[in-house]
Amino acid sequence: MDIAALLTSAGINIGLCVVLFSLYSILRKQPSNRVVYFGRRLATVRIRSDDFFSIERFVPSPSWILKAWETTEEEILSIGGLDALAFQRTLVFSIRIFSIAAIICLLLVLPMNYYGKEMQHKQIPAESLDVFTIGNVKEGSRWLWAHCLALYVISCGACVLLYFEYKSITEMRLAHIIKSPLNPSHFTVLVRSIPWSPEESYSDSVKKFFANYYASSYLSHQIVYHRGIIQKLMADAEKMCKMIMPVPIDGKSLRPCCLSADNTTSFKILSSELGSVKDSISYNDLDIATRENECPVAFVFFKTRYSAVVATQVLQSSNPMLWVTELAPEPHDVLWSNLSIPYRQLWLRKIATLLAAIVFMFLFLIPVTFVQGLTQLDKLSRTFPFLRGLLKKDFMNHVVTGYLPSVILMLFLYTVPPMMMLFSSVEGHVSRSGRKRSAGLKVLYFTIWNVFFVNVLSGSIISQLNVFSSVRDIPTQLAKAIPTQASFFMTYVLTSGWASLACELMQLFPLSINMFKKFILRNKEDCSDDLMTFPYHTEVPRVLLFGLIGFTCAIMAPLILPFLLVYFFMAYLVYRNQILNVYIPKYEGGGHFWPIVHKTTIFSLVLTQIIAIGVFGIKRSPIASGFTFPLVICTLLFNEYCRQRFAPVFKRDAVQVLIDMDRRDEQSGRMKEIHQQLNSAYCQIPMTSHELCASAHGGVNKIEDPEGAGAGTELNELTETCAVVNFGGETSTEN
Amino acid sequence: MDIAALLTSAGINIGLCVVLFSLYSILRKQPSNRVVYFGRRLATVRIRSDDFFSIERFVPSPSWILKAWETTEEEILSIGGLDALAFQRTLVFSIRIFSIAAIICLLLVLPMNYYGKEMQHKQIPAESLDVFTIGNVKEGSRWLWAHCLALYVISCGACVLLYFEYKSITEMRLAHIIKSPLNPSHFTVLVRSIPWSPEESYSDSVKKFFANYYASSYLSHQIVYHRGIIQKLMADAEKMCKMIMPVPIDGKSLRPCCLSADNTTSFKILSSELGSVKDSISYNDLDIATRENECPVAFVFFKTRYSAVVATQVLQSSNPMLWVTELAPEPHDVLWSNLSIPYRQLWLRKIATLLAAIVFMFLFLIPVTFVQGLTQLDKLSRTFPFLRGLLKKDFMNHVVTGYLPSVILMLFLYTVPPMMMLFSSVEGHVSRSGRKRSAGLKVLYFTIWNVFFVNVLSGSIISQLNVFSSVRDIPTQLAKAIPTQASFFMTYVLTSGWASLACELMQLFPLSINMFKKFILRNKEDCSDDLMTFPYHTEVPRVLLFGLIGFTCAIMAPLILPFLLVYFFMAYLVYRNQILNVYIPKYEGGGHFWPIVHKTTIFSLVLTQIIAIGVFGIKRSPIASGFTFPLVICTLLFNEYCRQRFAPVFKRDAVQVLIDMDRRDEQSGRMKEIHQQLNSAYCQIPMTSHELCASAHGGVNKIEDPEGAGAGTELNELTETCAVVNFGGETSTEN
Repeated sequence: MDIAALLTSAGINIGLCVVLFSLYSILRKQPSNRVVYFGRRLATVRIRSDDFFSIERFVPSPSWILKAWETTEEEILSIGGLDALAFQRTLVFSIRIFSIAAIICLLLVLPMNYYGKEMQHKQIPAESLDVFTIGNVKEGSRWLWAHCLALYVISCGACVLLYFEYKSITEMRLAHIIKSPLNPSHFTVLVRSIPWSPEESYSDSVKKFFANYYASSYLSHQIVYHRGIIQKLMADAEKMCKMIMPVPIDGKSLRPCCLSADNTTSFKILSSELGSVKDSISYNDLDIATRENECPVAFVFFKTRYSAVVATQVLQSSNPMLWVTELAPEPHDVLWSNLSIPYRQLWLRKIATLLAAIVFMFLFLIPVTFVQGLTQLDKLSRTFPFLRGLLKKDFMNHVVTGYLPSVILMLFLYTVPPMMMLFSSVEGHVSRSGRKRSAGLKVLYFTIWNVFFVNVLSGSIISQLNVFSSVRDIPTQLAKAIPTQASFFMTYVLTSGWASLACELMQLFPLSINMFKKFILRNKEDCSDDLMTFPYHTEVPRVLLFGLIGFTCAIMAPLILPFLLVYFFMAYLVYRNQILNVYIPKYEGGGHFWPIVHKTTIFSLVLTQIIAIGVFGIKRSPIASGFTFPLVICTLLFNEYCRQRFAPVFKRDAVQVLIDMDRRDEQSGRMKEIHQQLNSAYCQIPMTSHELCASAHGGVNKIEDPEGAGAGTELNELTETCAVVNFGGETSTEN
Repeated sequence: MDIAALLTSAGINIGLCVVLFSLYSILRKQPSNRVVYFGRRLATVRIRSDDFFSIERFVPSPSWILKAWETTEEEILSIGGLDALAFQRTLVFSIRIFSIAAIICLLLVLPMNYYGKEMQHKQIPAESLDVFTIGNVKEGSRWLWAHCLALYVISCGACVLLYFEYKSITEMRLAHIIKSPLNPSHFTVLVRSIPWSPEESYSDSVKKFFANYYASSYLSHQIVYHRGIIQKLMADAEKMCKMIMPVPIDGKSLRPCCLSADNTTSFKILSSELGSVKDSISYNDLDIATRENECPVAFVFFKTRYSAVVATQVLQSSNPMLWVTELAPEPHDVLWSNLSIPYRQLWLRKIATLLAAIVFMFLFLIPVTFVQGLTQLDKLSRTFPFLRGLLKKDFMNHVVTGYLPSVILMLFLYTVPPMMMLFSSVEGHVSRSGRKRSAGLKVLYFTIWNVFFVNVLSGSIISQLNVFSSVRDIPTQLAKAIPTQASFFMTYVLTSGWASLACELMQLFPLSINMFKKFILRNKEDCSDDLMTFPYHTEVPRVLLFGLIGFTCAIMAPLILPFLLVYFFMAYLVYRNQILNVYIPKYEGGGHFWPIVHKTTIFSLVLTQIIAIGVFGIKRSPIASGFTFPLVICTLLFNEYCRQRFAPVFKRDAVQVLIDMDRRDEQSGRMKEIHQQLNSAYCQIPMTSHELCASAHGGVNKIEDPEGAGAGTELNELTETCAVVNFGGETSTEN
C-alpha cells in the first residue's frame, strides 16, 4: 500500500464521518428521535413537547460538540457515575500519551526511518508506506538510538501518567463511597450455599446462624425464591387484579412489593397520586414462602457497613463451600436469574465457560485468516477470478486493499460481545456489573488475540497455525511482522475506529427500531423500555485495542499516530455526548474497569518493548537491545508497585472509611431511616426500566439536573404517562 | 545398565543400610550420644544417668524399629504436632498408592513390557533394564491397553486417597485449633507499616488507631524495637549483672522479660528455685522506648479470637500500604530479625529472591550435566583417559555407572536447602514456619527441575539447553526420555533415597560435633543448645520427588516400584523414630505443608498422564492416547474441587469455630487469665533453646510424657543443670 491508497482510505472515512456527524446533528433535533438520542434525559426530566416546525431543525450544527466539550468532570461523574468518568480518564490518558508519542516519533523517528537507507526516494504520494517504517533503517545503523530514546520517553511518560490516573481514580472511588451514604448494598451481604437441614427452612437457618454469630450487628434477612414461582405468582396476582378491578392498567400500575423475611407477601396498587396507597392485599395463604420454593440464597442486612464488610471478608464455616458470603450488589445490579444457581456449580461453570470462550476464540480464526488474504491483492484475484476485471481499476484496488478487509473484520467482530455476554451469564455472576466486567475481559482477550496477534502473525510471514511452536522466536517474529502490518493497522484505525464512532453516535439499531415503531406501527408515545446502560464491555476493549496498536506501532511505523490521535479525540467527544444524552447509569461499578485498563496498558508497553528488543536484534544493534531490557524490568516493577498500592482498594473497602461513615450516620440519626429502607431495597420482582432509572437517580445517584429543573415533580408526571408493567425481558436492555 | 548392575547397586545399598542401622542401634545406647539421638526427650524429661557398663550396649537391636512401629497417630500428634502428623500421612499415602501401583504394574504391565517385542531373551541377570520398560513394546501393539488401564487405576486410586487424606487432615487441623485454647497467636495481630507522624510515636499511633476503630475489642499492644538496640541493651544488662553479682552463671539464669507497651523494661534474675524471683531491676531510665528505636511494627492484642481474625481479614486503611495486618505467628515462631524490614520493601525483596532462586537453579545445571555424563561410560573414559584402566574392571564399571553419579548429585544437593533458607530469610518472612514453608517450596521446585527434568532431558536425547524452544514436542520428548532414564532413577532411589534415610537416622553432623565436644573438648554436660526442629523444608521435597519419580516411572518402567516401596516404608519408620526422639516442635504450622503435598501429587499425576499420551502417540496407539485425555481433565477438575473445598481452611480460620472457642472460654472464666498471659507472650529478647522448648511443651502442646513420668518436676531439674544464657545464635538451630 502506498501513501495514495492510505489517503484514499482516509478521505473516504473523513467524508463518511462528516456526513454521519452532520446527519446526527439533524436527526437529534427531530422530536420523533428524542427517545433514541436523549434516552437518559427523557428518563430524568420531562422535555417540552415542541413539535412545531422550524427550518433550524434541518440545518446541521456543531452545538452538540460544543456541549460535550464544555461539560466538566463533575457533571460526568454526577450523570454517568464513576464508571463513565474512569472511561473518560482512559481517553484523556490515551490522548496525552499519544500526543507525547506523536511529537517525539514524528519529529525524531520518522525522518530517521525515511532516510534510514541510501535509496532513490520517489515523490511522497507514490512512496510505499514501508519507507516510513523501521524496516527502512539499515542494519547496524547508529540512528537506532533515536528509536530507543523514543521508546524510553513513551514508556516513562505512560508510567507517570498511569500512576497519576490510578491515584486520582482511587481517590475518586473513595470519595464516591463516602459521598453515597444511602447505598443499601453497603449494608447487605449475599449469603449463598446455606446448608440444607431437614428440621428447618433456609430462612430459619439463616436467622439462627446470623443471630447466633453476628448477634450485635444482624438486622434482618430476605430469602431468594425460585424464579419460576415468582413469575407464576405475578401472573396469578395480575389475574386477580383484573377480577377485582376491571380497568387496572390505565393510569395505575401494579407495583409489587418485596417478599420480606416476615413471610407476608403483599401487592400494593399504586394510583396516579404517587405515594398514596389505595389498596393492599395480603396473600398470606399463597404458599410462596414454603420451603420448596426457597433457594439456599439470602440477602442478610446488617446494622452497620462495617459489620457487613466483616461478614464478607471472613470465612464463616469450617466447610468453605457452605455459608459463602460476599458483599451484595446494588439492588438494580442484582442478576436475579443467576442467584438460584447452586454455589457448588460455580467453579465448574467458570471452567466450562473459559474453555468455551477459548474454543470460540480459535474458531474465529477462520474468517480472520480469510480477511487477511484480501490485503494481498494477487492472492485475492487468484482465489476469485471473476473479480479480476474489477480489481484492475486503480480506485477499486485502493478500496479493496485499504478498506474492505477492515469492514469485513468489523462486521464479524459485532457478533463477539453478545456471545461473550452469554458466556458471562452462564458463568453465574450475581451482578450485572460483574457480568459486564467479565464479558469485557473476555472481549478484550478476544480482540487482542484475534485482531492484533492473528493479523500480525497470519498476514505476514506465517500462514500456518504452528506459529507458537517455538517460544523463543516470538519477539523476532513479531518484530518482523509489525512493520509490514502497519498499513493494515492504519486502515483498521480509519475504518473500525473512526467509523465505529460515527455508528455509535448515530445509534443505527435503536434509530431504525424507533423509525419502525413511529412510522410503521404509528406508536406516538415517546417512552420505550429499552433504555440502555453504557456498553463498557465493548467500548473499553476497543479503546484499549487502539492503545495497543498505537504503542506497538509508535516507533515502528509512526505514521499511524496522527490517525490514532484523531480517533481518541473524536472518541472523547462522542462518548461524552453519549454519556450526557443516551445511556443511563442503572448501577455503579465504582470505576472497576480501571484496573483492566491499567493492566492492558502495561501489557501493551511491555509487548512494545519486547518487540523493540526483537527489532534491535534484527537490525544488529545489541546496545539498543541491551538498553531496552532494563526498561522491561522497570515497567513490570512499576506495575507490581501499582498492584500493591492501588489495586486492593478496588477489591475491598477500607474499614476506616466505613466506620467513619457509620459514625457520621449514627450521629446524624439517619441510621434508623437507612435500616427501614433496607427491608424493601432488594425486590426480586422486576420493575420497569423507568422505575429502575427513576429510583437509581433518586436514591443512589442524587443527580443534579443539567437543565436546572427539579427532577422530582417531573418524574412523577413521567411515570404517570408511561406506567408499563414489565415482568419479562430483564436482560433485553442490557446488551 | 543390566539387571546385574542394578542388583550390585541394590546390594551395596542394602549392606550399607544394614550396617548403618545396626551402628545406630548401638550408638543410641551410649549415654554420651543421648544429646544427639534423644534431643527431644532430653528437653522434656530427665533421663536417668545410667552410665554403668553392660554388654547390651554394644549389641545391635531392632527395638527402635518396634517402638517406631507401635507409636500411634495420637502420640505423633501430641509429640510432633500436626506438621509431623501431616508428614506421616504423606508417607502413608505414598505407601498405599505405590502398593496399588506395584501390584497392578508388576502383575499386568511388567509382563507386557517383557514380552512386548518378539525377541531372543537372554538370561534374566544379563538382561538389559530397557527390556522391562515400555520401550520394549512394539509400535501399534494392542497390549498398550494394559498400560492405559494401569494408569486409570493409579490415577483414580491416587485421587480417592488424596481426597480422604485432605479431608482428614483438614478435620485434624480444625480439631487442633479447637483443642489449643491457650495459643496467644490467636489473639494477636501483627500490624506493619504504621504511618509515621511527626506529632506522636508509633506506639501512640497504634493505640489511637485501634482504640478508635476497634474500641470494643482492642486490649493492648507491644511495639517492636530495632534489633541493634535490643542487643546493645542485653549486653549492657549482662555487664551490669556481672558487676552486681560476680557469679551469675552458676545455677542462675538471666531471663529477660518482655518490653511491653507500658514502657517498663525489666530483667529478672531467676534462681534455681524456679518461680521465686529474687531480684528485679527496672531500667526505666534506659531510653529503649524512645521514638528513634521504635520500628513501625507492633503486636496488637485483642480481647477475642474473633476480633483478631476480623482485624486481619479486612483492609484497614484506604492506602493499602499502611496499617497492614496479619495474624501474628506463635511467640516462638516469630522471626524477630525480619520484623524491622520496612513493609514497602517486601514486594521488591520477593521479586529479587525469586529471580535469585531462578538464577541459582540454572547455574546448578552445570554440575548436573557433568554428573549425567558419568552414566555414559564411553563418554567418561574419553574425557578422563587415566580412568580407562580402572573402568575396564567389571565391578568398578558397575559402581561407576550405578552408584557414583547419584552420590555426586546428592552431595551437590546438600548445598541447596541452606541456600534456599537464606533466600527465604532475605525475602522477609516474619515467622520461622513461613520461612521454612517458603524454603521448602523453593527446594521442591529446585529438586523437581534439577533432579527430574534436567536429568531426564539432558541425559537422554538433548545435551543442548534449547530443549524448551519447542513447546509442543515436550510430551514426546519426555515420553522418549523417561524409559531410557529409568535406570538412573532406580539408582537414584537406592542411593539418594535409602542412603539418605540412613544418614538421617545416624545424624552424622550432630554426632561428629558431639564427639568433638565430648572427646576433644572434654565437655561433660549433656545439654546442648542446638536442638533442632524437623527439617520439613528438605524432607518434604525429597519424599515428593520420589513420589514424582514413582508416578512417572510406574507404567513406563515398573521395576522401580519395589525399591520405592522399600524406601517409603523405611522412611515411615525412620521419620517416626526421629519425631519421637530427636526433633522438638518449637512452633506449630498446622499441617501447612499438606496443600503443597497435594498440589505436587496432582502435578505428578498430570505429568504422568501427559507423558503417557506422548508414549501412546509414539507407539501409534491413538485409542489409548484418546482415553488418557479425559483422565487429565478429570484429575485437574478434582484438584480444583479440592482447592475450593479444603484449601481455604489452611489460609483462614473459620469464624464459627473461633466464636465458639471464645464463648467457651468466656463461660469458663478463662478469658481473664488468657488476657494476662498475652502481655508477656511476645518477648523480643531471644531465650535459650531449653526455655523455648520447655515453654513450647508446657504452654502450647501439653505433651503427654511417653515415659510415664510427670514432666513438670523433672523439667526444673533439667533447667537447673543446664542454665545457659544464649543471646546470639537464634537461627543456628534452624537449618
